[in-house]
Amino acid sequence: LKEYQGVSPISKAFSLKEGADATVRGWVYRTRSSGGVVFATLRDATGVIQVTVKKGAVSDTQFKDAERALIESSVVVEGKIKDDKRAPGGKELAVTAFKLIHAAEVFPITRDQSPEFLLDVRHLWLRSQHLTNVMKARHWIVHYLREFFDENGFYELAPPMITKAGCEGGSTLFEVDYFGEKAFLTQSGQLYNEAFITALERVFILAPSFRAEKSRTTKHLTEYWHLEEEAAWFDNDDNMRLQEEMVSFVCQTLARKQGGLLAKFRKPEELLVVEPPFPRLSYDDAAKKLKKAGLKFEWGDDFGSPHEDALTRDLDKPLFVYNWPRRSKPFYMAEASDGKHVLNADLLAPRGHGEIIGGSEREWDYARLVKRMKEDKLDFKNYEWYLDLRRYGSVPHSGFGLGIERLVKWMLNLEHIRDAVPFPRVINRAYP
Amino acid sequence: LKEYQGVSPISKAFSLKEGADATVRGWVYRTRSSGGVVFATLRDATGVIQVTVKKGAVSDTQFKDAERALIESSVVVEGKIKDDKRAPGGKELAVTAFKLIHAAEVFPITRDQSPEFLLDVRHLWLRSQHLTNVMKARHWIVHYLREFFDENGFYELAPPMITKAGCEGGSTLFEVDYFGEKAFLTQSGQLYNEAFITALERVFILAPSFRAEKSRTTKHLTEYWHLEEEAAWFDNDDNMRLQEEMVSFVCQTLARKQGGLLAKFRKPEELLVVEPPFPRLSYDDAAKKLKKAGLKFEWGDDFGSPHEDALTRDLDKPLFVYNWPRRSKPFYMAEASDGKHVLNADLLAPRGHGEIIGGSEREWDYARLVKRMKEDKLDFKNYEWYLDLRRYGSVPHSGFGLGIERLVKWMLNLEHIRDAVPFPRVINRAYP
Repeated sequence: LKEYQGVSPISKAFSLKEGADATVRGWVYRTRSSGGVVFATLRDATGVIQVTVKKGAVSDTQFKDAERALIESSVVVEGKIKDDKRAPGGKELAVTAFKLIHAAEVFPITRDQSPEFLLDVRHLWLRSQHLTNVMKARHWIVHYLREFFDENGFYELAPPMITKAGCEGGSTLFEVDYFGEKAFLTQSGQLYNEAFITALERVFILAPSFRAEKSRTTKHLTEYWHLEEEAAWFDNDDNMRLQEEMVSFVCQTLARKQGGLLAKFRKPEELLVVEPPFPRLSYDDAAKKLKKAGLKFEWGDDFGSPHEDALTRDLDKPLFVYNWPRRSKPFYMAEASDGKHVLNADLLAPRGHGEIIGGSEREWDYARLVKRMKEDKLDFKNYEWYLDLRRYGSVPHSGFGLGIERLVKWMLNLEHIRDAVPFPRVINRAYP
Repeated sequence: LKEYQGVSPISKAFSLKEGADATVRGWVYRTRSSGGVVFATLRDATGVIQVTVKKGAVSDTQFKDAERALIESSVVVEGKIKDDKRAPGGKELAVTAFKLIHAAEVFPITRDQSPEFLLDVRHLWLRSQHLTNVMKARHWIVHYLREFFDENGFYELAPPMITKAGCEGGSTLFEVDYFGEKAFLTQSGQLYNEAFITALERVFILAPSFRAEKSRTTKHLTEYWHLEEEAAWFDNDDNMRLQEEMVSFVCQTLARKQGGLLAKFRKPEELLVVEPPFPRLSYDDAAKKLKKAGLKFEWGDDFGSPHEDALTRDLDKPLFVYNWPRRSKPFYMAEASDGKHVLNADLLAPRGHGEIIGGSEREWDYARLVKRMKEDKLDFKNYEWYLDLRRYGSVPHSGFGLGIERLVKWMLNLEHIRDAVPFPRVINRAYP
């Protein structure tokens, strides 16, 4: 296999001068032949280049191979760089040797396929330029998120996936048979993060979370990647400040360092304006605003897409909606002094992209936490360890959870969350 | 809560001069009182410092609080730095204000607890200096692994956790009820990685994998973090070279940049000697060696702990054992030209720590792959998408999987793999 080594990435071939020798390898992206010439484009992980194979310029066998190399066939070609203004990128490769590595069957994906079919052949559709670019951008978004936490002295830890304790209510739990015992796939690593801070103070995890969501929306997956942060001694204001700094850092860094990639999705300037502070609206004020705008909404309701859209339609930066009604939020959120609200905030992405982060100060008092757990009728047996965190050196603390795919959807301005992850899992789909 | 902000990490307090004011916060690590003085040590995420609280130097209420602050109580203290050769680190804090944030109940962990009890209170045992240091080191090990891949142009992707296709045989699959359909928790993201390389060429994933291991050993978890790499156009030699460069980079970087932390586990020099090339032994030669050493072993057998131990007991660097019998390895590994072996390698850690990486060239020919899948009696319905990768532009490629906890166990010289992960999952344990 050594013969495949030492070739140039396609992006580098574009920096070569007219007449230079180049060997590239990759997959046939487009191809047609006409009058003894095969005009094709090849793609690799770095780009797409035009290649021309002329009868006579290569052996007869090689020319026949070039003719029968259907799209997605894998090839290695040698040739000379030629400047050509009509070619994408202004250069093409005039082929002197054409090696067909594998002749593809007729590729099943053509134009105008249904979304369901494209999910069936997701393993092939991932080769599309659109999804390839999404996955590159996702790589960088996750990379910059980690960079932000590194620079701020956070430790990354690994939470368990199989647990006894749900965190966000029983209706969306996936059940696992754990050696004959009933267990669940984690909905969140937050409760574990709250244990980690008693040793490491500032921590984050980036791991899968699971929700058996029965609704089909453009914002829900049953399996998603969850960035969860937790910090000892942080109150809800510190928490919001950390979130807006983090989101701004990722937006700015992606726009500055990966501007060409980002430009395939939206104008990079649109993310450059994302900087602290973000606008803040109390839940109570948001409720008034929604009613005033004529939407059906009662105090205590959660937001649906129309509400998120109404609040963020005209915004360029994400919006914090803080201090939600206690009864609408989970047991672990700290109560405000009025007993009716909690010290929390949801961060809504601009232009109706919806919630990307939920965060709060945590209830750190044993007695108040027990009261909330009783109200929520939780099975104490599975939460004894969590209560221990309030028995032995409890400290004020806050944290948040960010859905990676929701962040990617907003940052890249995608229509549907399923395109923010390579193999989306939604109701009735665990294949491929 | 603003009052808790702006204090010094304990590690910084040690750089202050005699007489300087300092405020630190954390948890009571040890405490005793004698003759109107409370002698305590406090820990935070950065270190441990001695504090003395003298009756009269603080208010009476504060002195009483200092007396009743049992270990693991959370506190904020103000005081003056004093040089004291008897104190750990040579400094102590003479307290002028003692604020008890939360008075802990009697901490349940005392000396000489059983391993089972320590697993029951894992959420508290994580606060021990030993586990705190392990988790810090794990953070850095994972950090340097990612750094290695970044520097070599790899993209990180996210594989699905819930799948239809097993990869390593049916006996260790966990079943999930996926909306009434039978699905499994992933054993490996490799097959998905093989799809990713057709667009991005060099990829890795770092995600949980699951094995319903019924055996209790010091090397197995039911849930572990799996670093899996895959690269288009790489043969098994490229694959082994990449592995030895990666493992060497992580060992050297941890020893050089986190030498103080590493020294709590082993001499940093022991990891500095880990550099390419690693010793290599064919499976056939290994089999001869094992027989010669008098161990019970037949050609075709897998290694057990005694075999791994015999082969690596005297080594300072990991050992590649390559080209295993075809019948002992999974269907996706490429056959050697003799038809009896596969083009693969297992990487064994020195001194009996066991296998840390398994890798191979992949079978990229459609017909040969189908033959192997039939031999293994796989249900083709769940692998059609994987076969597509050999129908449309198949390329030679290789990859490997590394168990993060096994790497951490070896690098930190831990006795048991469960201490390499915060909340270990083993047979009959999914709590806490």
